[in-house]
Amino acid sequence: MAKKPAKKNAFYAQSGGVTAVINASACGVIETARKHKDKIGKVYAGRNGIIGALTEDLIDTSKEPVSSIKALRHTPSGAFGSCRFKLKSLEENKREYERLIEVFEAHNIGYFFYNGGGDSADTCHKISQLSETMGYPVQAIHIPKTVDNDLPITDNCPGFGSVAKYIAVSTREASFDVASMAKTSTKVFIVEVMGRHAGWIAAAGGLASTEDTPIPIIILFPEVEFDQKKFLAKVASMVKKHGYCSVVVSEGVHWPDGRFLAETGLKDAFGHSQLGGAATVIAGMIQSELSLKNHWAVADYLQRAARHIASKTDVEMAYAMGKAGVQFALKGHNAVMPTVDRISNKPFKWKVGMAPLSKVANVEKMMPKNFITKDGFGITNKCREYMEPLIKGEDYPPYKNGMPKYIRLKNIAVPKKLKKFKL
Amino acid sequence: MAKKPAKKNAFYAQSGGVTAVINASACGVIETARKHKDKIGKVYAGRNGIIGALTEDLIDTSKEPVSSIKALRHTPSGAFGSCRFKLKSLEENKREYERLIEVFEAHNIGYFFYNGGGDSADTCHKISQLSETMGYPVQAIHIPKTVDNDLPITDNCPGFGSVAKYIAVSTREASFDVASMAKTSTKVFIVEVMGRHAGWIAAAGGLASTEDTPIPIIILFPEVEFDQKKFLAKVASMVKKHGYCSVVVSEGVHWPDGRFLAETGLKDAFGHSQLGGAATVIAGMIQSELSLKNHWAVADYLQRAARHIASKTDVEMAYAMGKAGVQFALKGHNAVMPTVDRISNKPFKWKVGMAPLSKVANVEKMMPKNFITKDGFGITNKCREYMEPLIKGEDYPPYKNGMPKYIRLKNIAVPKKLKKFKL
Repeated sequence: MAKKPAKKNAFYAQSGGVTAVINASACGVIETARKHKDKIGKVYAGRNGIIGALTEDLIDTSKEPVSSIKALRHTPSGAFGSCRFKLKSLEENKREYERLIEVFEAHNIGYFFYNGGGDSADTCHKISQLSETMGYPVQAIHIPKTVDNDLPITDNCPGFGSVAKYIAVSTREASFDVASMAKTSTKVFIVEVMGRHAGWIAAAGGLASTEDTPIPIIILFPEVEFDQKKFLAKVASMVKKHGYCSVVVSEGVHWPDGRFLAETGLKDAFGHSQLGGAATVIAGMIQSELSLKNHWAVADYLQRAARHIASKTDVEMAYAMGKAGVQFALKGHNAVMPTVDRISNKPFKWKVGMAPLSKVANVEKMMPKNFITKDGFGITNKCREYMEPLIKGEDYPPYKNGMPKYIRLKNIAVPKKLKKFKL
Repeated sequence: MAKKPAKKNAFYAQSGGVTAVINASACGVIETARKHKDKIGKVYAGRNGIIGALTEDLIDTSKEPVSSIKALRHTPSGAFGSCRFKLKSLEENKREYERLIEVFEAHNIGYFFYNGGGDSADTCHKISQLSETMGYPVQAIHIPKTVDNDLPITDNCPGFGSVAKYIAVSTREASFDVASMAKTSTKVFIVEVMGRHAGWIAAAGGLASTEDTPIPIIILFPEVEFDQKKFLAKVASMVKKHGYCSVVVSEGVHWPDGRFLAETGLKDAFGHSQLGGAATVIAGMIQSELSLKNHWAVADYLQRAARHIASKTDVEMAYAMGKAGVQFALKGHNAVMPTVDRISNKPFKWKVGMAPLSKVANVEKMMPKNFITKDGFGITNKCREYMEPLIKGEDYPPYKNGMPKYIRLKNIAVPKKLKKFKL
């Protein structure tokens, strides 16, 4: 093995579903690395996530001007491309892990920053372990990101606060709308939100209602088995009392037998299966069983891409996680993840903490039971205390001619040095 | 008939689907009327629109503090309640028109401000005519409002610019998202938008793509018969070229035989008809015919309630229309509607104009043919020139604890003077 220069390059990749603020973490990584050019060479990014490392398709972020990197902070999506590609276990496919180390070595990469959720934390941990045994040590740092908010130890996951704000604001706005129409027209508004396994995002709909602006909202959580009779009775009673109500339904809501509501077997006129949504099923039963006119929306990608209404707190945390990742690396840490540690609620204070990846990998944080009201349709004050600080503050992107100015990077490739690798 | 005092009160009502800025028009009406207390007494609002007039359920807006009226400018929905209630023709139901005049007379109302779309312009016109013949003349002024943008003479309808901005911004954001995921996951993003009869709102999706931020977008207009083969070929070619694409589909898109895509007869596992959406049908065919992973969203009320991302131009126009309505009334005009008259595009300049209701009622402005590209899937530069100024500028509401502060008025009822009226 040829002698390596002391100063190592860094590799950064985005993993899984992107968010409104994952690029703010990228911004934190790159800006902080650029401040330490004595210790960190270039920051290479994986084109389309870890696939870029496997295929040696690296992006040279040093070709991007300061202004472009700065603009990442207010640009949603994954600026280098992300991917849904889970590395198999070491036993099943050692070849992929070895390839990663080979690419890192060829490009003098000593720091690995992986920006993602639970799966990527696991991958990050394995790479750190394997690189040791392969004799090419890499400091692997995981940067937390996921709208699912399901990483352990950290108070929350950057990306969640912004999707929560979007859902809370949208639910409030649509509820005002339906309230105006209810006398002669629509009486129930339904919005379907993300969160197949946990109701974090659905719970955010509850934030639409506050003490000074109460709104009748029913939340359907994936944590609570769907009880049609009880639900319809709740809708009927709310409409009777308030004249209208809003329903926030998680895509993960399921019948007692485990089937998702969204998978009720919709078929078109020709008998072809159709993609449905939980919202359409809820809308259908409110119409057919209660004869209440309703409207429904499915937020889908709009919710996680909505940088225009991102939470300032979330943006700051996302940036801080990227920055802390680089600082941890510079201090010699390995196989760790920066975390958000909450100090107090009133006033809301937090600091950056550190978690070992051994304690993060393969642990899914569920929503606490005491976040859901006893009837199963609302959020508790405990939940509100936790969630409200996360949606606090606005952080508007710059606009040009009425449209947000989001950056597209040049994404110039680093010349390849190795043979092709078949995925 | 008893002698009327010289100073008349005003009546204001909101009609049809509400918007992000209809309350800005209400604000314009009330603030301007308050500046002319020598000529206009109180402004009464109809609770739930014109129904409030028929049932003598009037709201005394003079009970609202200055700050609350001011807050209407940044509050979406209809603050006094709106309704979908079309008065029948004079021949069919003269009784209703006579009741309106009776209520106006009982409450010394000499000005009628009706804030709505085509139907309400027609009602407004009829009331003006009938009040003359009944010997209780009322000055009837129509304030334009509709996200459908289909009123004639006026350059555009307040409400449209904000929904256009929402759709343009959301489409850009979701397109950035799908572009990041396309390598290994979602390749097509579909968003369904409002506009059953005309493609104004769908066209706004085209604004997501600009010269400095080009995005592959396919628009499905209600003006263009749906051609499944041609559409799927377009999707396939765009995904081949760009790796991804976005589809903006109007709820009004229909098959050559006139059936809406949204009404393809979705049935659930039990054979019950399900409410579907055009987006689910488009998603289904992209999946089954092209095997391309896709995601879909239905914006529904979120688009027209989204005051958080309202167009500043739209807010200003909405306010100006309310203000001009009162000014017209003070000058003695009757059976007219204030309009937006465009003076120039670069720089964008406009002024308030005036249209006689005889020329507004029962005329639906369709989107010009030269706004749609020859292939039927995009917008022309002509369309862009028209639409871009309407989404210009941001006009953020105030926030408290991360949530927009929208006003709820006290809406105190005016004591009734008449017998009950059966609707």
